[in-house]
Amino acid sequence: MNFNMIAYILGNIIRIEGILLSIPTFVAFWNKETHEAIAFIATIAACLIVGTLLIRREPQNKRIYGREGFVVVALSWIVMSLLGALPFYLSGTINGYINCFFETVSGFTTTGATILTEIEGLPMSILFWRSFTHWIGGMGILVFTLAIIPLGDDRTMYLMKAEAPGPMVSKLVPKVKSTAMLLYKIYIALTIIEMVLLLLGGMPLFDSIVNAFSTAGTGGFAIKNASIAGYHNAYFEYVITVFMLLFGVNFNLYYLIILKDIKNVWKNEELRYYIGIVFASIALITVNIYHMYPTLESAFRHAAFQVAAIVTTTGFATANFDVWPEFSKTLIFCLTVLGACAGSTGGGIKVSRMIILLKSAYREIKRIVHPRSVNLIKLDGAKIEEDIISGVTGYIVVYLLLLLGSFILISLDNYDFATSLTSVVTCLGNVGPGFAMVGPEENFLFFSGFSKVVLCFDMLLGRLEIFPIIMLFTPSIWKKSYM
Amino acid sequence: MNFNMIAYILGNIIRIEGILLSIPTFVAFWNKETHEAIAFIATIAACLIVGTLLIRREPQNKRIYGREGFVVVALSWIVMSLLGALPFYLSGTINGYINCFFETVSGFTTTGATILTEIEGLPMSILFWRSFTHWIGGMGILVFTLAIIPLGDDRTMYLMKAEAPGPMVSKLVPKVKSTAMLLYKIYIALTIIEMVLLLLGGMPLFDSIVNAFSTAGTGGFAIKNASIAGYHNAYFEYVITVFMLLFGVNFNLYYLIILKDIKNVWKNEELRYYIGIVFASIALITVNIYHMYPTLESAFRHAAFQVAAIVTTTGFATANFDVWPEFSKTLIFCLTVLGACAGSTGGGIKVSRMIILLKSAYREIKRIVHPRSVNLIKLDGAKIEEDIISGVTGYIVVYLLLLLGSFILISLDNYDFATSLTSVVTCLGNVGPGFAMVGPEENFLFFSGFSKVVLCFDMLLGRLEIFPIIMLFTPSIWKKSYM
Repeated sequence: MNFNMIAYILGNIIRIEGILLSIPTFVAFWNKETHEAIAFIATIAACLIVGTLLIRREPQNKRIYGREGFVVVALSWIVMSLLGALPFYLSGTINGYINCFFETVSGFTTTGATILTEIEGLPMSILFWRSFTHWIGGMGILVFTLAIIPLGDDRTMYLMKAEAPGPMVSKLVPKVKSTAMLLYKIYIALTIIEMVLLLLGGMPLFDSIVNAFSTAGTGGFAIKNASIAGYHNAYFEYVITVFMLLFGVNFNLYYLIILKDIKNVWKNEELRYYIGIVFASIALITVNIYHMYPTLESAFRHAAFQVAAIVTTTGFATANFDVWPEFSKTLIFCLTVLGACAGSTGGGIKVSRMIILLKSAYREIKRIVHPRSVNLIKLDGAKIEEDIISGVTGYIVVYLLLLLGSFILISLDNYDFATSLTSVVTCLGNVGPGFAMVGPEENFLFFSGFSKVVLCFDMLLGRLEIFPIIMLFTPSIWKKSYM
Repeated sequence: MNFNMIAYILGNIIRIEGILLSIPTFVAFWNKETHEAIAFIATIAACLIVGTLLIRREPQNKRIYGREGFVVVALSWIVMSLLGALPFYLSGTINGYINCFFETVSGFTTTGATILTEIEGLPMSILFWRSFTHWIGGMGILVFTLAIIPLGDDRTMYLMKAEAPGPMVSKLVPKVKSTAMLLYKIYIALTIIEMVLLLLGGMPLFDSIVNAFSTAGTGGFAIKNASIAGYHNAYFEYVITVFMLLFGVNFNLYYLIILKDIKNVWKNEELRYYIGIVFASIALITVNIYHMYPTLESAFRHAAFQVAAIVTTTGFATANFDVWPEFSKTLIFCLTVLGACAGSTGGGIKVSRMIILLKSAYREIKRIVHPRSVNLIKLDGAKIEEDIISGVTGYIVVYLLLLLGSFILISLDNYDFATSLTSVVTCLGNVGPGFAMVGPEENFLFFSGFSKVVLCFDMLLGRLEIFPIIMLFTPSIWKKSYM
């Protein structure tokens, strides 16, 4: 294990966090929030000190492998959250460090589950930081680090692999650094387009920025108590619906669009399944909730918004789906588990994993009918290697075991079945709202400190796709001699 | 597809069902239940006519393969249930044929979910038939058929494979027929021992017989409205707890005990996990519910009974676990999914599958730490073939997809989250009770006819371990030309 290199990368990430914190600090000064400004500056100081201490010694050996990639990613997300919670804690906006940590983990992992009961009264700079954590966490701070810091040779691919969501990670262009830059350019461009469209519809500048941040990261922190419903504006709802869905698509496809390679965009099976699932869910839910709304348009709009918010794991709300008919709720539950496309900013188990699972299940059935047949599984016309398939099924099994394990631990708080189960499912999937006591109009404040820590781990496990966090708790990986 | 052979085996099974129906007919005559006696005789006549028509032509070609095995098993369980429902329907004890069918499927699949609201007033012969279906379904009527009917050569192994639960099926002795006989002998012996022990404790003869049937099949139909709690007898509860657990063990181990090969019994990993899970669950739940009961003994007794009832998928009750603390309920939920040992009469996904899943998940993690290492998965000290592992993960994936699919369909009835979800989980696992409206003190009558049919399919899918039922709906399998 190359500890020097781990410390070096970690230190750089923490310093970058310190630099990024200057933006909410600026908001605090601009809005004359002295108290918050001090909290932000203190946090920046902490980041710079810790970061500088860690990079003190530039490593001779810059080689890193999969192991180091996982450890760096897991550690950096945990440390980022521990430090990122300080502005909430030091400014006194949120009581108790565990609550601050929960809110920050929820932010960085783009979950959007909150422990706040009253949002509208909060200082602007704090609201900005909350939504900004979504934006930072959406594309991944490591990807950002890769884009701007020279980290040596091509082995940085391991870092990207460890942080990027989905069963397979591919580079857009031969160099990791250029790929990371390109991803961030697409991300920034889409965020700005959404912001401008919201501005044009009459949304205040500050609201446009933070809502664009939350949409882009598929996070879901809003700055109104009633989430996006608080604007009572159908135009905003449609714009955000479309952008949530856009941020749930694999970013590689946007690169193909830039290259004008539209043919390969439509060849993408995950995209076609994703579109199919979204439209089918919207149609079924619209029919199912039609009687609850005055017009077909409003039923459709709420169905579309909520489907987009859940399948992309954003978690914004314009309607309380917890009072919808059970059929719609069950579809919402299934979408919560499913999540968005691999290589997007969304969470969940990802559409491409579901496709691979469906195909391998179908193969299992075919194998029983024709025992001697050889069946390859193809995706986008190309054969999928067997180790990717066993990786996907292994992932699902570990996911379910973590889900059941967390469910058992959360149930120690003695809240009802739907609350305990859906709080775990929504945190693991980085969605945000669940049912019952964690429904779209509720929050997570009532959970015990222990449960909040469990849910924080679930959010991190979900965002980093399990293995980096599990690595941290694998003793053999910490042996120094081990290469 | 060898249709003649399928018809021949099916006909034999139906005739055997007709013969088995003579026992409740005898009970009806003995207890002077004329109405019911007529219903039973009419059913016997139907079985004999249909069965004889099907075996009219003895097939020249007696060869069968995996495909035929699956189709025979699936068809025979459906036809057995369709015919077995007739006594309930013709005697008028249960209203509506769908309800009768649900009760019979629940009986044969040893689920024990009932649509009856009042049990104690029912005629003795009907109560006998209900519990007898558990006993028949527990070991499997095909295994019974194999034990008594000459079916030609060794290819009958495919029949046994299709009906027997668990990821791997092994013969106890070289001949399938002798294996089937041996299994039934062990089954009968254990049933008689339980019956005698209940009798010795002062339980009436009729009750001892039917409760032993329900325990042996790990079914759960009781003849008191309050299930086993209706006896208010700690001795009965302990005896039934022990026998539920015994019937949840792989029957191969009893054969080893007969052979005095105790060393290999303790080598069995599934048994050790099973014992560990049972004792850990009992201990945790006893502590968790202690405050609800007057003495530690009664808390322990209820914890032990309910854990045994759920993990073995019997579903008897001495306490309403739906009012226990959520932690205990969550453990019960996990046990509902898990189920008993492979090769037992219990349902669920089976302990051995869970072990294989855990080991393959662990391997996935190890593979990430040591990418080039080769890791074999061993069970009981022997290597497990990769196709068994992918069979197990494939099974779990299909299981989950069916679970979610059924959950969506059941939610059309618009009952709450816990009711819809746990009704599907408990039916797929052949357990019986769930939570909320399908809790231990409730029943399944309120569901729509559509939902009842869905749940019937879930029970059959669970008992036959999915693939035989899916085969029926695979068009390619029905092509006559296809070998």
